[in-house]
Amino acid sequence: MTKRFQLVPCLAALICSGALLAPAPARAEEGMWTFDNPPLKQLQDKYHFTPSKEWLDHVRLSSVRLNDGGSGSFVSPHGLLLTNHHVARGQLQKNSTPEHDYLRDGFYAATPEQEMKSPDLEINVLVSMENVTSRVAAALRGARTPEAQFAARRAAMAGIERESQQKTGLRSDVVTLYQGGEYWLYRYKKYTDVRLVFAPEQQIAFFGGDSDNFTYPRYDLDMALFRVYEDGKPIDSKDYLKWNPKGAANNELVFVSGHPGSTARSDTVAQLEYVRDTALPNRIKILGSRIAVLQKYSAQGAEQALQAGSQIFNLANSYKAFEGEAKGLRDNSIMDKKRQEEADFKAKVVANPEWKAAYGSAWDAIAEAEKKMTGRAREVFYRALDSQLLSLASTIVDYVAEIKKPDGERLDGYHDSQLDSLKYRLFSPAPIYSGMDIARLAGSLELSLSELGPGDPYLRAVLNGRAPQQAAADLVNGTKMADPAVRRKLVDGGQAAVDASTDPMIVVARKLDPQRRELIKWTEDNVESVTQRAGEQLGRARFAVYGKSTYPDATFTLRLSYGQMKGYPMNGTEAPYKTTFYGLYDRAYSFDLASPFNLPPRYLEVRSRLDLATPLDCVTTNDIVGGNSGSPVINRNAELVGLIFDGNIESLVGDFVYDGETNRSVAVHTAAMAEALRKIYNAQRLVNELMGQ
Amino acid sequence: MTKRFQLVPCLAALICSGALLAPAPARAEEGMWTFDNPPLKQLQDKYHFTPSKEWLDHVRLSSVRLNDGGSGSFVSPHGLLLTNHHVARGQLQKNSTPEHDYLRDGFYAATPEQEMKSPDLEINVLVSMENVTSRVAAALRGARTPEAQFAARRAAMAGIERESQQKTGLRSDVVTLYQGGEYWLYRYKKYTDVRLVFAPEQQIAFFGGDSDNFTYPRYDLDMALFRVYEDGKPIDSKDYLKWNPKGAANNELVFVSGHPGSTARSDTVAQLEYVRDTALPNRIKILGSRIAVLQKYSAQGAEQALQAGSQIFNLANSYKAFEGEAKGLRDNSIMDKKRQEEADFKAKVVANPEWKAAYGSAWDAIAEAEKKMTGRAREVFYRALDSQLLSLASTIVDYVAEIKKPDGERLDGYHDSQLDSLKYRLFSPAPIYSGMDIARLAGSLELSLSELGPGDPYLRAVLNGRAPQQAAADLVNGTKMADPAVRRKLVDGGQAAVDASTDPMIVVARKLDPQRRELIKWTEDNVESVTQRAGEQLGRARFAVYGKSTYPDATFTLRLSYGQMKGYPMNGTEAPYKTTFYGLYDRAYSFDLASPFNLPPRYLEVRSRLDLATPLDCVTTNDIVGGNSGSPVINRNAELVGLIFDGNIESLVGDFVYDGETNRSVAVHTAAMAEALRKIYNAQRLVNELMGQ
Repeated sequence: MTKRFQLVPCLAALICSGALLAPAPARAEEGMWTFDNPPLKQLQDKYHFTPSKEWLDHVRLSSVRLNDGGSGSFVSPHGLLLTNHHVARGQLQKNSTPEHDYLRDGFYAATPEQEMKSPDLEINVLVSMENVTSRVAAALRGARTPEAQFAARRAAMAGIERESQQKTGLRSDVVTLYQGGEYWLYRYKKYTDVRLVFAPEQQIAFFGGDSDNFTYPRYDLDMALFRVYEDGKPIDSKDYLKWNPKGAANNELVFVSGHPGSTARSDTVAQLEYVRDTALPNRIKILGSRIAVLQKYSAQGAEQALQAGSQIFNLANSYKAFEGEAKGLRDNSIMDKKRQEEADFKAKVVANPEWKAAYGSAWDAIAEAEKKMTGRAREVFYRALDSQLLSLASTIVDYVAEIKKPDGERLDGYHDSQLDSLKYRLFSPAPIYSGMDIARLAGSLELSLSELGPGDPYLRAVLNGRAPQQAAADLVNGTKMADPAVRRKLVDGGQAAVDASTDPMIVVARKLDPQRRELIKWTEDNVESVTQRAGEQLGRARFAVYGKSTYPDATFTLRLSYGQMKGYPMNGTEAPYKTTFYGLYDRAYSFDLASPFNLPPRYLEVRSRLDLATPLDCVTTNDIVGGNSGSPVINRNAELVGLIFDGNIESLVGDFVYDGETNRSVAVHTAAMAEALRKIYNAQRLVNELMGQ
Repeated sequence: MTKRFQLVPCLAALICSGALLAPAPARAEEGMWTFDNPPLKQLQDKYHFTPSKEWLDHVRLSSVRLNDGGSGSFVSPHGLLLTNHHVARGQLQKNSTPEHDYLRDGFYAATPEQEMKSPDLEINVLVSMENVTSRVAAALRGARTPEAQFAARRAAMAGIERESQQKTGLRSDVVTLYQGGEYWLYRYKKYTDVRLVFAPEQQIAFFGGDSDNFTYPRYDLDMALFRVYEDGKPIDSKDYLKWNPKGAANNELVFVSGHPGSTARSDTVAQLEYVRDTALPNRIKILGSRIAVLQKYSAQGAEQALQAGSQIFNLANSYKAFEGEAKGLRDNSIMDKKRQEEADFKAKVVANPEWKAAYGSAWDAIAEAEKKMTGRAREVFYRALDSQLLSLASTIVDYVAEIKKPDGERLDGYHDSQLDSLKYRLFSPAPIYSGMDIARLAGSLELSLSELGPGDPYLRAVLNGRAPQQAAADLVNGTKMADPAVRRKLVDGGQAAVDASTDPMIVVARKLDPQRRELIKWTEDNVESVTQRAGEQLGRARFAVYGKSTYPDATFTLRLSYGQMKGYPMNGTEAPYKTTFYGLYDRAYSFDLASPFNLPPRYLEVRSRLDLATPLDCVTTNDIVGGNSGSPVINRNAELVGLIFDGNIESLVGDFVYDGETNRSVAVHTAAMAEALRKIYNAQRLVNELMGQ
């Protein structure tokens, strides 16, 4: 399965995203292109195809972003939305009970009335894009220092967002592209009434489990169908992708329209070294610890296992992804290539006196900032404690303080334009499991204690003399944060209510607040402001040197990638461009049906009715990363031929570099979805709707 | 498929075999053990199993070596012999005609009368083993220089072989084990009336072709059945392996009894560096050239394609194997480990004054010899011309000269005890295709010309002023060597007949003879004699330091290996311990039935009748290399559970090092053979015989 976007809780955005600098010129099939700048020349040269404006608008408006960290698309005129099971997984779990285990058994709404509301899923459709680079640039005039520019930039972006939201009522985000080479205002139509229509059993969606995750050949039906409602009725999704049950042929041109989360392809070598030597090792250590904590919790019983399942699933996914990234960065050939690219770029910049003066200092500035960051990295990583309730309390403490400031001066996440989505999550009625939260908090306190030592003031504020387990139990058992009404009341009561609260989690969050703010401020002043300015310099330098011939690093905004259905060299032989249902049964019986290669009962019962040669999964050369999960794969007629759900093991280094020889995205084939809905799930209602019948 | 033993024609044995020195102590599951020294302690400790003497004798006498370069076993009391299709391939091709293409269509003798004689297949059964180390050692006393020792050793070994053969009538080989730490007299019962009973279509035996070769998961039915006759009747094979149609369970203890060709696990670092930097790059270049020559020849028509098929098949197999070995040796972690082992061993030797005096100079002596070898390596590699007819002529020229000498002074291959087998091959009635021989000879002359230059006296003797193509055509078209009767007449006529011959191939072979002998003599005096003596020193040193706790390097003699049915980490996930018929169809349809993943027509016709969950292939941790092709896999009851046919891609470095984590042997499962014989080939007669019914 594909990496999910930002699964590691972050204190400051830069820790999870290495995406700061401008990319090298794009190679064949490479690229996550913005819809305002599709790779027309490459498409025409290689495939003799030029998408029209109507084609691009239609595909964009058929594409959907999910706040659970994935992508999707409309696949019928009545708001039917296709995405991955693993993107829907959180909602499935939140709706599950010991009596109704939708993860184990799947879900199918045989009638419209049975379609099941998701507790806190928000989806966004990108309805307009506007280049606001000159407005942001104008705001920076007069600001001299990186810190002053940082503040001015933040204020300008928040202002543009607020103005847009007030004028249009649409979710409005100013997006930084090309590391600040461009700024764009993206407006989204937002939907929050999203109902589950169909999901298969987790065991077939994620057949092969963590073992097969990020690999290919693959045999997963990683799909889910939602329906988007507004005012209690399914929306009219005028723009939707027509279903092509035949899929695409070997070597056929295909596109992926979705939301790659973040890449760091134009990071400087200094930044990559920070990621390789500091960020990734710490992330991997933290994830390993969290997984171990949750596995121990799961072992306590079936209910605990159900509660922790999604978390473990996501963490294990990130763990394997980070390990793949780390392996990629330890590969000297990749780093040597990066060094070479940087040397070439730098040589071109310094050869031109004007460019040299404007941009030449950027590399050293970034290297210096990364060095400073390394000095406080342990605090950044190990002060991020793992507790849903503490996280909610901290958000409330921040909220009431930030909301009093002028919009432009607030911390990121608390701008006017972001408040609706923030509150939607903050007041989510989704259950919070106190036993699990105790385990998580205690586990992360223990790890942090061993890393930062007992003298760390942040940890002392939480522990207050208690052992981690005791502190976690006291806090979780004493707090009322699990109740959305309590959270709402505190937010409504503002600073006074929060100051007066004796809820132990709020009390701790208040104590931690100055330290958290100090670290964020320090990071902004010493690292983010510097790398933002240097990033802008390098972004402009790249435009100057190479022209706008390329795509910006991924930012969890809508992108179009092109490629082909295509196998690749693997394991000494060839991986085929598709797999079949035969392969599903082969892999299951090859492991004697042992977990994670067991099959849901239905698959043993209906086997003889299936056409086993039906394509199941497939691979394409499209350039995707985490966040693309659930993206549609479409042909040149904008017909749906597949559903992205993963990248292969060779794609894990894709955050830093794209290798068209072996980097593959993995998709569910439309033929498999139709065969399964029809013959395994008897979901004829959906088949008819998908086929337009 | 497994590497075949010695596919590259060799001028001197050492060029193809790097096996000269004593191995490090064996690790878990590692080892190709001689039947006189099975790993009893390891088996008892890990598996609580101790094979009895009867068990060992029974397994040894059920095991068979084929002179086509593979292994096999008796599987019925009536001489039925199981081996790989790819071991039988040469015989199948020699019996094929444009009208009867047994490679394409397979072969099944529905009645005993239809069983089909193989033109030149010889099989050997190891009937006794005798330690003759002291006899060889005694012969060396008094010989001081390496050259004198070399001659004395050769004379002693030939004498022992001759004496044994005269006394017993059995094929008798003195085998050098532990690099001369031990010498053993192996006596073989030899059979030459070997008839084909069953072979499937090449396309299912080698499904996936060169792409899937040396890889796993795998879906090949790489089997063939012969029957061994004597005096026109099937032999009574009292010792044979009982068929176990269930195969072995996951993690079950299994053994492989077969003939690993050659390994170089105890080569010194200097020897490995020679292999890495000189031998392998040249072998790969030569193979690449020969494959290209034969592919061009094949493209001329269907008949040419049929003639060249086996050659290309074998060369491509070696090419992929050598590339895997080269990759392994370029892996610094492997070489570093070898350096570390050598340093440890050396430190222990020099720490003991007595050992130091006796063995301490061996490493430097070998390094010096390898350096000398490098100086003449180009001659060794590029004077080995590729022509079956020239090779026959050269053998005849050598034969009549060698036969006049005392046995002990002859070149290896011409000792009395070796003459029967030599003549069997020399007088083989198998067809020789003159068009192909012209192409091969011309191609290798061109390559050698570009490597050695037109001034090389060896090439000048062949070309005699002509272009390679012309010279090859003149020689091949002018010679009568293709006729076995002509060859026999020359041999019978002795030196006088050869001297008088005007056959152009004999004339050239005579001209080349002094140069060939000079190079062989130089190599013996400067390299072989030195490395043999140093090898003996190190072999004894290892016994002194580590005791006889290990196995000798492979020598194409019978060995027993133990291991488990077991998957392994692969491609970011797990490879299962077995595959199924489902997987065969998956892989075929995943490639839309395109070659080399097409299926023979039968497999499409009978599909619905098959139990697709039947295991097809499987992997074990047994330590095998090329030459083990066709070896039986047996359980602790000595029942047949599988048929070795390959190693995985990770096993290619097995010539130098064994890694139990990922090194796997690949076998056909007994269940698959039974299912196929019964339902696909309707070979009920054979099923009954195999099942003992």
